Amino acid sequence: MEELLRSIEEKVRPLIGQGKVADYIPALANVNPDQFGIAIYSNDGALYHVGQAKKNFSIQSISKVFSLTLAMKHYGEDMWQRVGREPSGNPFNSLVQLEYEVGIPRNPFINAGALVVSDMNHSRFASPHYAMREFIRRLAGNPKLRSDKVVSNSEYEFRARNASMAYLMKAFGNFENDVEAVLHNYFDNCAMRMNCIDLAKAFSFLANKGYCRHTGEQVLTRRETTQVNGLLATSGLYDEAGNFAYRVGLPGKSGVGGGIIAIVPNRFSICVWSPELNESGNSLAGMAALEALSESIGWSVF
Amino acid sequence: MEELLRSIEEKVRPLIGQGKVADYIPALANVNPDQFGIAIYSNDGALYHVGQAKKNFSIQSISKVFSLTLAMKHYGEDMWQRVGREPSGNPFNSLVQLEYEVGIPRNPFINAGALVVSDMNHSRFASPHYAMREFIRRLAGNPKLRSDKVVSNSEYEFRARNASMAYLMKAFGNFENDVEAVLHNYFDNCAMRMNCIDLAKAFSFLANKGYCRHTGEQVLTRRETTQVNGLLATSGLYDEAGNFAYRVGLPGKSGVGGGIIAIVPNRFSICVWSPELNESGNSLAGMAALEALSESIGWSVF
Amino acid sequence: MEELLRSIEEKVRPLIGQGKVADYIPALANVNPDQFGIAIYSNDGALYHVGQAKKNFSIQSISKVFSLTLAMKHYGEDMWQRVGREPSGNPFNSLVQLEYEVGIPRNPFINAGALVVSDMNHSRFASPHYAMREFIRRLAGNPKLRSDKVVSNSEYEFRARNASMAYLMKAFGNFENDVEAVLHNYFDNCAMRMNCIDLAKAFSFLANKGYCRHTGEQVLTRRETTQVNGLLATSGLYDEAGNFAYRVGLPGKSGVGGGIIAIVPNRFSICVWSPELNESGNSLAGMAALEALSESIGWSVF
Amino acid sequence: MEELLRSIEEKVRPLIGQGKVADYIPALANVNPDQFGIAIYSNDGALYHVGQAKKNFSIQSISKVFSLTLAMKHYGEDMWQRVGREPSGNPFNSLVQLEYEVGIPRNPFINAGALVVSDMNHSRFASPHYAMREFIRRLAGNPKLRSDKVVSNSEYEFRARNASMAYLMKAFGNFENDVEAVLHNYFDNCAMRMNCIDLAKAFSFLANKGYCRHTGEQVLTRRETTQVNGLLATSGLYDEAGNFAYRVGLPGKSGVGGGIIAIVPNRFSICVWSPELNESGNSLAGMAALEALSESIGWSVF
Repeated sequence: MEELLRSIEEKVRPLIGQGKVADYIPALANVNPDQFGIAIYSNDGALYHVGQAKKNFSIQSISKVFSLTLAMKHYGEDMWQRVGREPSGNPFNSLVQLEYEVGIPRNPFINAGALVVSDMNHSRFASPHYAMREFIRRLAGNPKLRSDKVVSNSEYEFRARNASMAYLMKAFGNFENDVEAVLHNYFDNCAMRMNCIDLAKAFSFLANKGYCRHTGEQVLTRRETTQVNGLLATSGLYDEAGNFAYRVGLPGKSGVGGGIIAIVPNRFSICVWSPELNESGNSLAGMAALEALSESIGWSVF
Repeated sequence: MEELLRSIEEKVRPLIGQGKVADYIPALANVNPDQFGIAIYSNDGALYHVGQAKKNFSIQSISKVFSLTLAMKHYGEDMWQRVGREPSGNPFNSLVQLEYEVGIPRNPFINAGALVVSDMNHSRFASPHYAMREFIRRLAGNPKLRSDKVVSNSEYEFRARNASMAYLMKAFGNFENDVEAVLHNYFDNCAMRMNCIDLAKAFSFLANKGYCRHTGEQVLTRRETTQVNGLLATSGLYDEAGNFAYRVGLPGKSGVGGGIIAIVPNRFSICVWSPELNESGNSLAGMAALEALSESIGWSVF
Repeated sequence: MEELLRSIEEKVRPLIGQGKVADYIPALANVNPDQFGIAIYSNDGALYHVGQAKKNFSIQSISKVFSLTLAMKHYGEDMWQRVGREPSGNPFNSLVQLEYEVGIPRNPFINAGALVVSDMNHSRFASPHYAMREFIRRLAGNPKLRSDKVVSNSEYEFRARNASMAYLMKAFGNFENDVEAVLHNYFDNCAMRMNCIDLAKAFSFLANKGYCRHTGEQVLTRRETTQVNGLLATSGLYDEAGNFAYRVGLPGKSGVGGGIIAIVPNRFSICVWSPELNESGNSLAGMAALEALSESIGWSVF
Repeated sequence: MEELLRSIEEKVRPLIGQGKVADYIPALANVNPDQFGIAIYSNDGALYHVGQAKKNFSIQSISKVFSLTLAMKHYGEDMWQRVGREPSGNPFNSLVQLEYEVGIPRNPFINAGALVVSDMNHSRFASPHYAMREFIRRLAGNPKLRSDKVVSNSEYEFRARNASMAYLMKAFGNFENDVEAVLHNYFDNCAMRMNCIDLAKAFSFLANKGYCRHTGEQVLTRRETTQVNGLLATSGLYDEAGNFAYRVGLPGKSGVGGGIIAIVPNRFSICVWSPELNESGNSLAGMAALEALSESIGWSVF
């Protein structure tokens, strides 16, 4: 397996230089673009990795999968009163659809949807970010994971569009808590620093019918696990979910920090990372690596 | 297997009466709503069916999968210049997105996308509908299949919205042939009458790496097959693709005639039919049957 | 007065070369851009003109005011069931609003609205274009006016977007007649050739409480006249109605042939013409001439 | 004149009961709906009024005309870099257009536009609300005018949608100051309490070529005055500007407190007030009174 991963790394490394590191906040713009790592964790506990798989990066939108999981554990089916399950067909931060659809975001993986999910968790936990950090540390089996305050403060400073979305949902009665407080927690979650190995392990429950081998915890039921994966497959890659299904064929979630997680149901959880993004905001080399992997092993679920 | 299918039929039959038969044209409105059939065709050639699985119905939008397959065989990757691969996030017949995105439909399964695909096939074949009919007859192993002229004429009479879409694409330079001529062929394809067994057999190649067992034909390559299934999974169920992934977890395509086809990759092709539709235009009892099937056998690809 | 007009001509002539002649159909693209004319017709029958005021041009969208007038005479207030009276806030040929507002166009001066008005006149007259031509000839006092068949045929050939709008309205039940037939008449009306003097005289009734001095005909009531002028002031200049109110301050209507008519209520009717258009599709030199006229004589109604 | 006003009052009083008092904040919902007042101030200093013309009410969006005037005095033509001059064709508080048009609001009279104008004034004055209050007191000739803190606090509490708009503009770089601070001043301006006589006098400069007779101040130039009136005529009545031009034919501005001001250029300024609103958010009896006035005296500028 690691030989295959090395050949893939060799194949996609030359793409570095053709994308663009996220630069909407200074704290992310400074990342060295010339990095690539991949980790694969199998349901039987084997771990494979190549490249900078131990280098921490900002998980950003990948945190939305943790938030959704936490909310599903507490709210169950009720949560779908406040957020939809359909692809958006619009950029991840658009307000147009949100206004037409009276403040109910299309799915939990666009920003508006993740803000509503954060608002749900905010209503539930006394210290929402700490609850989330604890949850992530446990799933990853890494008690040292933490949020990067420089990044989260910078996100907060440039919060205007997310604030706009949160206030619009509040205007439609779909936001319970103080907007500023929820934004702080939301950005703290996005700013968690993890590496490929952490993320592959943390999401292994999605490949394993909801079971997390290293904690012995049934994180979600088997049915809920297929549901989360179904949502990831249809809405996890911003405006590129269809393309990802076409090229890779796995449930996945990307972040503007350059990470992408992908799930091979019943077999593996994968995390690939490379900071440069394509035009849809997904890791350029990461997408290419997952496509090569899918082509060579025939891992598409389809 | 047939016992399971019978128990599912028993479970979903009571739903009949809660949906609404498509009534936008008289020829469809007259269908007896109290019907249900299901057929499953396995890759090893076994066929299971219960209910009215031998009763013909109007395949309607399910024909879009045949059109796409035919176009992919001829145009390959080039076809994606003219139609996208992303979920639309809008009703199947909306013009809003089409105008904002300068005449490139989001995917081949919304009406605008299927019209472009029909336009491609129109440029290729001397008699586009006959080429399509031949292709479908071969895949289904049924040389008697034909289009219902009463239905296709009625569709043509009420063509206004589809004509509007086709002309809008023509205005953007994304429509090559005469609008009226393409519409006639498009409606003839939609009006094909087939039963559950025909459709399960016809789409068996999507469950079998592109190979059609009963004709011995490699319809699509293995890679193309996963690609079509990936597109079906993200865009096949109108505005309910996410919900279908969440509840059923299989690539699928529905039609307003009440049919739904679904693919269990590497194992089975399924067709379920019941004429009453839910609010998203998908067969109410059909969706419920597929969900029950998915829950009981754990067939979700996710 | 003619001295003032000459000074204005001198002032705006240098703008020619900075705009762009309409080129969406070949028949219009061939017009010599270096032309400018203006005619002012006073309620007491005096006529002033400079430049190429006797040169015929394609009236295009200015014909929408004739169509509206004819429809108001026959349908009165009833006509507002089928077309609105509000500015569109969208390009003149957009379908987005039309879909959101279920086939009721915003006002009679955007294309969709003018098509509905043409459809009304089509239901009323045996030969709709001839009725319209007769009406225009009478108002202009010029029995030789006719439509340019080369232009109207060319418009018809490139009818795709207008056909798309008409079919969309038909889909919503707001179009009574055959789409192709109405389009033919609509394009024949747009292709009428008239000069500045013809148009200034033809619209003199809008400056004269509905009365046409040279025919002795009360074309509209006094109240209807202020209503038409009110609609022209809020919706007559495509996407530039607000700017026209700000810069010129008169009810007016433009056409892509480069003509603009403007009304000084109770005093004058004006027609200015120069083929090059600005980015909003209004005559560049024409707009400048009307602004200079408004500034120098203080003719703004505001 | 007062006899005419009394006959109009008699005619429209029966309409009270058919509209609906603004109830989006409690402080406005409590107003007694059974009230009507009108005041007309002529350029020669005569004042006519009937009904509750001395009863104070919340001026709400009418304040947007004061804000625009103040900004025009300071920024001149430069201000149009940040706000457009076109009718919006959308509800007054929509974010859709604002997102498509990258944060530049359509005109200064929709909420987003007024927020940008408030932001401009905020950058200019040390105490923006006090500067505005001083300006209004002077124009109205009433040093006792003040803002209703109960109303402005209530507006602030329910600020979500306005906050959403302000943050969206900030995200596009079209908002300079702290969102919360500008909102406070904006709501304080909206919550000014004035009566019909105050408002008729305060806006007399718009009827008098920019000159305010009772202060002897040239508030705007003659040209700027026609420009403000032109914008009021095309964008002053929310989604009903075209209908207002059709029915009334005067530049005007309404507020959800039930007030409407209207200008008869070179002759009169008018303020009418009645708290119940029609479906577009404009005073029901107020609109009817202005239409009756326009019909009986023929005051339409068109």
